[in-house]
Amino acid sequence: MTDFAATRRLFQIPDDVVYLDGNSLGPLPRATPDRLARTLDEEWAQQLIRAWNTSDWIGQPARLGDRIGRLLNAPIGHVVVGDTLSIKVHQALAAALEASSRRIILTDHGNFPSDVYVAEGLAATLGRGHEVRRVAPDGIEAALDDEVAVLLLTHVDYRTGRMHDMAALTRRAHEVGALCVWDLAHSAGAVPVDLLAADVDFAVGCTYKYLNGGPGAPAFLYAAPRRAASVTPAIPGWLGHAAPFAFEASYRPARGVERFRIGTPAVLQMAALEASLDIWDEVDIHRVHEESVRLAEKLIAGLELRCGRELTLASPRDAMQRGSHVSFHHPEGYAVVQACIEHGVIGDFRTPDILRFGIAPLYIGDPQIERAIDVVAQVLEERLWDDERYRVRRVVT
Amino acid sequence: MTDFAATRRLFQIPDDVVYLDGNSLGPLPRATPDRLARTLDEEWAQQLIRAWNTSDWIGQPARLGDRIGRLLNAPIGHVVVGDTLSIKVHQALAAALEASSRRIILTDHGNFPSDVYVAEGLAATLGRGHEVRRVAPDGIEAALDDEVAVLLLTHVDYRTGRMHDMAALTRRAHEVGALCVWDLAHSAGAVPVDLLAADVDFAVGCTYKYLNGGPGAPAFLYAAPRRAASVTPAIPGWLGHAAPFAFEASYRPARGVERFRIGTPAVLQMAALEASLDIWDEVDIHRVHEESVRLAEKLIAGLELRCGRELTLASPRDAMQRGSHVSFHHPEGYAVVQACIEHGVIGDFRTPDILRFGIAPLYIGDPQIERAIDVVAQVLEERLWDDERYRVRRVVT
Repeated sequence: MTDFAATRRLFQIPDDVVYLDGNSLGPLPRATPDRLARTLDEEWAQQLIRAWNTSDWIGQPARLGDRIGRLLNAPIGHVVVGDTLSIKVHQALAAALEASSRRIILTDHGNFPSDVYVAEGLAATLGRGHEVRRVAPDGIEAALDDEVAVLLLTHVDYRTGRMHDMAALTRRAHEVGALCVWDLAHSAGAVPVDLLAADVDFAVGCTYKYLNGGPGAPAFLYAAPRRAASVTPAIPGWLGHAAPFAFEASYRPARGVERFRIGTPAVLQMAALEASLDIWDEVDIHRVHEESVRLAEKLIAGLELRCGRELTLASPRDAMQRGSHVSFHHPEGYAVVQACIEHGVIGDFRTPDILRFGIAPLYIGDPQIERAIDVVAQVLEERLWDDERYRVRRVVT
Repeated sequence: MTDFAATRRLFQIPDDVVYLDGNSLGPLPRATPDRLARTLDEEWAQQLIRAWNTSDWIGQPARLGDRIGRLLNAPIGHVVVGDTLSIKVHQALAAALEASSRRIILTDHGNFPSDVYVAEGLAATLGRGHEVRRVAPDGIEAALDDEVAVLLLTHVDYRTGRMHDMAALTRRAHEVGALCVWDLAHSAGAVPVDLLAADVDFAVGCTYKYLNGGPGAPAFLYAAPRRAASVTPAIPGWLGHAAPFAFEASYRPARGVERFRIGTPAVLQMAALEASLDIWDEVDIHRVHEESVRLAEKLIAGLELRCGRELTLASPRDAMQRGSHVSFHHPEGYAVVQACIEHGVIGDFRTPDILRFGIAPLYIGDPQIERAIDVVAQVLEERLWDDERYRVRRVVT
């Protein structure tokens, strides 16, 4: 049984802030600064180059991968951490395309544009007529035909929170002979995922959102055993070599998913991630999801009751079709979000008109949801958003 | 005038260690832990998602790039930091190949195998008959002909320290219509580099060696103004988009070198790098190089005098043809290096028989060189290396 009152105390969040943007950047676990200080003082400073062995820095990407894999029901030894999500999308998609002679990369309008950029860039690099086909999220099943090489989808829509049925779409893709690459950016640490049961080919994700690994925390890549063992990586990295320190003239892939390692791992980021995974090791993701659903229902009910004339729910009403954030449309969404932030409730805005509230039960409970409802209602009722300073676009929205 | 007694005090190195492996991983600057603690406590914990704007995390890659660019005489706004060196090699090489209809990627046996893996991976991905041609380092000039699309070289050989004449080879490459990609992994912070004068097309490098950015510190990429402005990146990343937060359906490259950004920057690694660049901002790289040459000459003379029968110089004897490390051959090189480390002198080993000693005047001076000579001489004279435990290969050599 996960004790959310206890997990809440593990995070350092300003008292006057309700933080509903952990789906963009999770907050600081209290244990992270000490963990990083130890990496600096005891590992880097004292051990210097030897720390690659003595502190097993070299093993971090696989070790952390397994801890993330536990949340996704990935078998041990099949998740590796490193680089950024875009690079992992590139690697997974290139590997999936290598296994197919077809030319269509199927995705939907709910996918991250960034994933699509990478897919189009890879198609252009390959120069063999690959094409990214984009359809509406509910049109995926119909669009899955025997032309599709790879189904590239983000499990939970970054705007609306709409969640795909991963098992059903993967099954359907396999039925028509396509492979799947699932982006779990808004899923890992948010909703239960069962990669093994869904028979997923490749999955990728990031660790700075619900996993609380910190700004710039590395990404991860899962490859099904049958896939990892046969693929030649498109970016053959020296740490994905079978013998990195033999400095052989030619690349030979490392065993399994380790071949998706590329360069020197980001040791400091990984140390921070290690501290946040200490929390996740003790948590039951199913309980986290149950609690997230309960809090989301409360937020939706409260906001619809008090702001129903101004806010329109953008997320699916059925909790089983939703990830762990709740979104609303408002024509002045950007200014509303800025005003809420100014009044202590941090959500975020996604173009063109979406207010997004991320619900992470590890540090969000009833008092935070109640205060969020009050503040959003006040901002709307008193038109606090209608102020010049809330229209000034910041660099990062 | 750079005061090396003063710079030495800026690093935290164990008293009983002579650290001659800063060409592999630089030591911890004393200011780094406070800088990182501030990033955690004042930026991440307090500002949360807002820190992308309030602490300008989003601008780090360009800001740090300019500070590195100063050491390489790159014009402002033409260096960007991020990812790992292998990814930056991939990006630079892909960009250079895009600008040429030829098929040969010319490199030498002195290049990092990892750079060659990336080149071969890219050639395979492109599937258009590109071929990596490898010649001896002194055969590059003769091999530069009108079939060569890109000359891909590492400036300073990671094993021998042999340094190419960047300006001459770049000029020769341009004369035959080829572009250049220079890997500065062992050059940045080690030897003066003048990218502008040498008219280099692309350069890449890492920041965890002489720049002391820490384990897993990000890489950098330089693109000449004429190149960056016209290229379509092979990995179009959302932070290399002209408007990252507009979430447009299609990729439009950002201005200039910023288009080589890919995913979310590694903020914690960059904060560490920021602290180490505070030191570099105050340092004259020409003075660093002069001092490095003086110390290297002393190390070579001392080791040849005392161990000349066992050690053979692997580095060029002419300091102007050498980077900032000095290498020797010894048939039992691995065990010799292990024994030296056990006796407090940390150098490293590179297959098959190379002992490598990196000289970084920011924290290495005469006493360290003298002690290194004594310890190496003792290890060889007393055959201290001839011990079973020094033959056990560690994971990272």
